[in-house]
Amino acid sequence: MRMYDLIMKKKNGGRLSREEIEYMIAEYTAGRIPDYQMSAMMMAVYFRGMDAQETAALTTAMADSGGRMDLSGIAGIKVDKHSTGGVGDKTSIALAPMAAACGAKIAKMSGRGLGHTGGTIDKLESFKGFTTGISAQHFIKQVNDIGISIMGQTADIAPADKKLYALRDVTATVDNMSLIASSIMSKKLASGADAIVLDVKTGSGAFMKEEPDAFALAREMTTLGNLAGKKTIAVVSDMDQPLGYAVGNALEVKEAIAALRGEGPEDFRQLCMTLGTCMLIAGGAAADEKEGRDKLAQVIENGKALDKLAEFVRAQGGDPQDVYDTSRLPEADMAEEIPSPQSGYIGKIDCDEVGVCSLILGGGRETKESAIDLSVGLVLHKKTGDPVSAGEPLATIYANDREKLSAAKERFLKAYHISEEQPPKRELIRGVIK
Amino acid sequence: MRMYDLIMKKKNGGRLSREEIEYMIAEYTAGRIPDYQMSAMMMAVYFRGMDAQETAALTTAMADSGGRMDLSGIAGIKVDKHSTGGVGDKTSIALAPMAAACGAKIAKMSGRGLGHTGGTIDKLESFKGFTTGISAQHFIKQVNDIGISIMGQTADIAPADKKLYALRDVTATVDNMSLIASSIMSKKLASGADAIVLDVKTGSGAFMKEEPDAFALAREMTTLGNLAGKKTIAVVSDMDQPLGYAVGNALEVKEAIAALRGEGPEDFRQLCMTLGTCMLIAGGAAADEKEGRDKLAQVIENGKALDKLAEFVRAQGGDPQDVYDTSRLPEADMAEEIPSPQSGYIGKIDCDEVGVCSLILGGGRETKESAIDLSVGLVLHKKTGDPVSAGEPLATIYANDREKLSAAKERFLKAYHISEEQPPKRELIRGVIK
Repeated sequence: MRMYDLIMKKKNGGRLSREEIEYMIAEYTAGRIPDYQMSAMMMAVYFRGMDAQETAALTTAMADSGGRMDLSGIAGIKVDKHSTGGVGDKTSIALAPMAAACGAKIAKMSGRGLGHTGGTIDKLESFKGFTTGISAQHFIKQVNDIGISIMGQTADIAPADKKLYALRDVTATVDNMSLIASSIMSKKLASGADAIVLDVKTGSGAFMKEEPDAFALAREMTTLGNLAGKKTIAVVSDMDQPLGYAVGNALEVKEAIAALRGEGPEDFRQLCMTLGTCMLIAGGAAADEKEGRDKLAQVIENGKALDKLAEFVRAQGGDPQDVYDTSRLPEADMAEEIPSPQSGYIGKIDCDEVGVCSLILGGGRETKESAIDLSVGLVLHKKTGDPVSAGEPLATIYANDREKLSAAKERFLKAYHISEEQPPKRELIRGVIK
Repeated sequence: MRMYDLIMKKKNGGRLSREEIEYMIAEYTAGRIPDYQMSAMMMAVYFRGMDAQETAALTTAMADSGGRMDLSGIAGIKVDKHSTGGVGDKTSIALAPMAAACGAKIAKMSGRGLGHTGGTIDKLESFKGFTTGISAQHFIKQVNDIGISIMGQTADIAPADKKLYALRDVTATVDNMSLIASSIMSKKLASGADAIVLDVKTGSGAFMKEEPDAFALAREMTTLGNLAGKKTIAVVSDMDQPLGYAVGNALEVKEAIAALRGEGPEDFRQLCMTLGTCMLIAGGAAADEKEGRDKLAQVIENGKALDKLAEFVRAQGGDPQDVYDTSRLPEADMAEEIPSPQSGYIGKIDCDEVGVCSLILGGGRETKESAIDLSVGLVLHKKTGDPVSAGEPLATIYANDREKLSAAKERFLKAYHISEEQPPKRELIRGVIK
């Protein structure tokens, strides 16, 4: 078998066999197929596509390119959750303890990510001393003991995907449905959970700007997961404006804690209830949607979800007091309100641009080596459809640098469009695919 | 400017500007754009194409990636000739002295090539002592003195094309009209001639199997040449069977010499007359086709073309006696006839496969490092449309190794198809594009 022939086959519209895909991924991971051949292949795949069988073969080949995590030492159905990402997406921080408090086994691997804010791991590091750099033994024991653990993704999880994604990222070959789906699902399959709940975002702040694309990706991923024997459910949710009000690492942790107290923004609460119900059903902790929603409402009401977060933080090196007193979390030196330049209704929000404000303030990573400032970010006061008067604050910016604050403010004002008409309401939950 | 953005633009069907193409080629040649980005770009170009302006910009950017040969020291119009290659294509060896004997200035750069036989340079090395490794000064002086010189292509001629072609060759991105045309024409433009005559082959032994593709390439290249201010003429000619009878280095030299004596195969003579007329007209040595043909016929008749070859061989280190006594050229140890297995007419010939027989015998290069056996090859006795009786020889194989001879013979018999009906005649000259 020669990579040249496989490139030629795909270029001419042919189907790659399972054996061909396994060869390609194994040899590429081993460094015996050069980047320049793989990038030509990825571009050919972009134009010719891959069918369901090819995508499944690619996913399992990448999942098997390193070791698969063995979670058989954990009793019960292990549930993992993944979001395709967006602005203000602090969901895991509230959702994981909620589901665990209801009896689901939450064994989650997470990444840091390169984005407007840090990934879940970065956000959790707002708890001083908290670490996700734990051993597999610690991870398994913790899930058995308290029902929840989040560990950093090890280098041994789907190394082919890591190498291939880095290549696609610099060769303009990221945006293909099969490649996106197989990248996400290969990591999930290798992470060893029995059931997977996916949050696929759509809108101006999501990777999938258009709703039909988000549904197509959701379907592709649920098919891949279920074919691999993992109960997989996908929720398609809105990301045309930031989720909740907080954007920034510690600010988002505070908002997640508020939600666990039964406070906080309605859209964020709604998303946690929907995803949480899916997790309880997939994890065997609820028989149906009604039971799922009731259980989740109860653990918020009686404080067990909040206590679970405290337990979780303690088990991974943090101080549980931070959960009950969020003034102990990192705080920025400066806070400045951004007044609305005019009266009207909040119309279109360029959601990605709000994310860029956080990045400018130092809340995200531009390169893998960048350090993150956990304290900075924005708290919105107005969201799409809200009425606003001239001079009323649209948001508060939290910053540690005067110049960055000015730059973020300027950018923010361009991202918020005030209109005379009230725009139609967008539904947060667009659909659930089982 | 970032290569990533250029890949994305081309992938999405955009047009690259001249500045963008110049940046891309200059940075790639300097090693500041990596192969993996360029191969993704080449695959995107394969799918999206390049328009006439992009192709022209690519051609000049590659032509300017090294030095351009300065031939201003040669008086008169310098003519170059290029063939897209085929089996038994010994044209330059007869054509160049014919045109020079008529007064055209033949300043040609040539390559060794990786093929069934060697390139023109390898073939010319059948003359013991002959070298194309001459200096630019020697080259220019020789053309001024005797009207003809062929030198090896220097590393400084279109280095971008050399690097890019090597990459395309291993990433299945060779077969795109704009890329093929710009690759050939960038070298021709950098080689410094004033006029260019192109022989574009079509058929089973050519790179362009289909005639419309050959015409499209011919048109693309003449446009590029004429746009760059070089008088450029293309002839589209048949390569559905080998040209002439001889396939192999020294064997082809002998056939070219026979043609200079007014002997040799009719198709080869016809091609030399057509291309030669184009060269004389382009080089200002003939006013029209009639004058061109008359002059060429005359220099064959009076022996001046043969004498010009002898002069040329002497000027570059060979022994001119070899031209007049071809028994002095390399000869193989063994000669074996291949009898026809049945009676009928020669039908379809798998022309590429006849070339492979020469390769098997040792007459071509499989890798850049391979040594060539100049003495081996085949001489055909029957060509398409010829009647044949069972047992009558189809060809004679010349070999230095018994096993290779057997392998070539077996392969040859599969390449020749004997049919009951006489196939329709294919015209050798399909068209001339000025």
